[in-house]
Amino acid sequence: MRRHFEEQIDECNARLLHMGSLAERMIDKSIQCLLDRSAEGRQEVFRDENEVNSLHIEIDERAISALALQHPVAADLRLLVMVPKIAGELERIGDQAVNICQHNSSVLQQPAAEISTNIPSMAGVVRGMLRESLEAFVRRDIELAQKVLDTDDKVDAFKDQIFFELLGRMMSERAAIPRAVELILISRSLERVADHATNIAEEVIYVAQGRDVRHHHEDRNRS
Amino acid sequence: MRRHFEEQIDECNARLLHMGSLAERMIDKSIQCLLDRSAEGRQEVFRDENEVNSLHIEIDERAISALALQHPVAADLRLLVMVPKIAGELERIGDQAVNICQHNSSVLQQPAAEISTNIPSMAGVVRGMLRESLEAFVRRDIELAQKVLDTDDKVDAFKDQIFFELLGRMMSERAAIPRAVELILISRSLERVADHATNIAEEVIYVAQGRDVRHHHEDRNRS
Repeated sequence: MRRHFEEQIDECNARLLHMGSLAERMIDKSIQCLLDRSAEGRQEVFRDENEVNSLHIEIDERAISALALQHPVAADLRLLVMVPKIAGELERIGDQAVNICQHNSSVLQQPAAEISTNIPSMAGVVRGMLRESLEAFVRRDIELAQKVLDTDDKVDAFKDQIFFELLGRMMSERAAIPRAVELILISRSLERVADHATNIAEEVIYVAQGRDVRHHHEDRNRS
Repeated sequence: MRRHFEEQIDECNARLLHMGSLAERMIDKSIQCLLDRSAEGRQEVFRDENEVNSLHIEIDERAISALALQHPVAADLRLLVMVPKIAGELERIGDQAVNICQHNSSVLQQPAAEISTNIPSMAGVVRGMLRESLEAFVRRDIELAQKVLDTDDKVDAFKDQIFFELLGRMMSERAAIPRAVELILISRSLERVADHATNIAEEVIYVAQGRDVRHHHEDRNRS
């Protein structure tokens, strides 16, 4: 029974990791489309999203079936309730990559206004958070999960810096306004990806320690 | 045993509804602060958020305890796995109200630039979606849940209309740029609230019908 349960957990983990690597690739490609000022890769993002959505449904079903058949308790139960939540976070990360692509396409229709921002660097940090949050989940690594939470401040700093830079640009150059607004919205999509990675890391700490850190973090950000 | 299970579900429902009414009030107050150009009410939103966060943790614990003690199967199991997800959606709606308040405070620091937008109407539609998604959950009302999904198109239309109106305003009046950008971001926070209400409605249909509508809706929006 125990062994069968562990196999089911392993199956869920393997699918979550695959879903996570698809989500990472979607973020990469959507930012790449933005940098290249090309629409190539958008279709690939949409294809990846279909796979992410199928995995979301499959992982939910597997977790519910394991709950029904195995009646886990304590840490195993918390783990299994966490699995569909993590799948939900990954699915929404995919949605953000699609959002970024959709911004791209309207940016591409506008007259060129070259604006260099820290968006690619922000995307790199966010991708790292996503990867580390999943590693922390698989290895039950509280320290790594805590590192993800700490990195969120860096994302906030990027978000503010990009916002004020683009606001200044809009004030000084009218032609840059449409593209600058789109870039601000793209930076907010990346911020949301970081939020989802943070949610995963908080769940990891919650399950591993039985300690709920989920709202402490928000309180800190308020100050 | 069955009766005890139903009592536990009722307890969870009562708390979810309370959480939902707090979330509604938070949205109201945050938009009211924006309309009044006053910072009053912000502290109330922050207080409500603390209560929403506590309820989130409490509901999670109650659902996990019911899963551990009752070993529900089939529809009851799906229901109990759904409860923490809905609590999570409501908690994030509260986060958006806080985001709106934080935008407000930076808007208030800027020189006045009177801009009338459809944001209050959009907020009204979004609040309605939130209320109906919870009603649909409590009454297992698939038709009402479907209505929430259908209303999402109205929110998208508001979002686009507000965006293009404010973009036009920015192009024609430099002094309006900072406030217009904040208002665009506020409309995106409202869009996220609508997304969370949609997620709740999709879960209701999923549990009631055993049919997964969660990704059909997104595909439709892509076109």
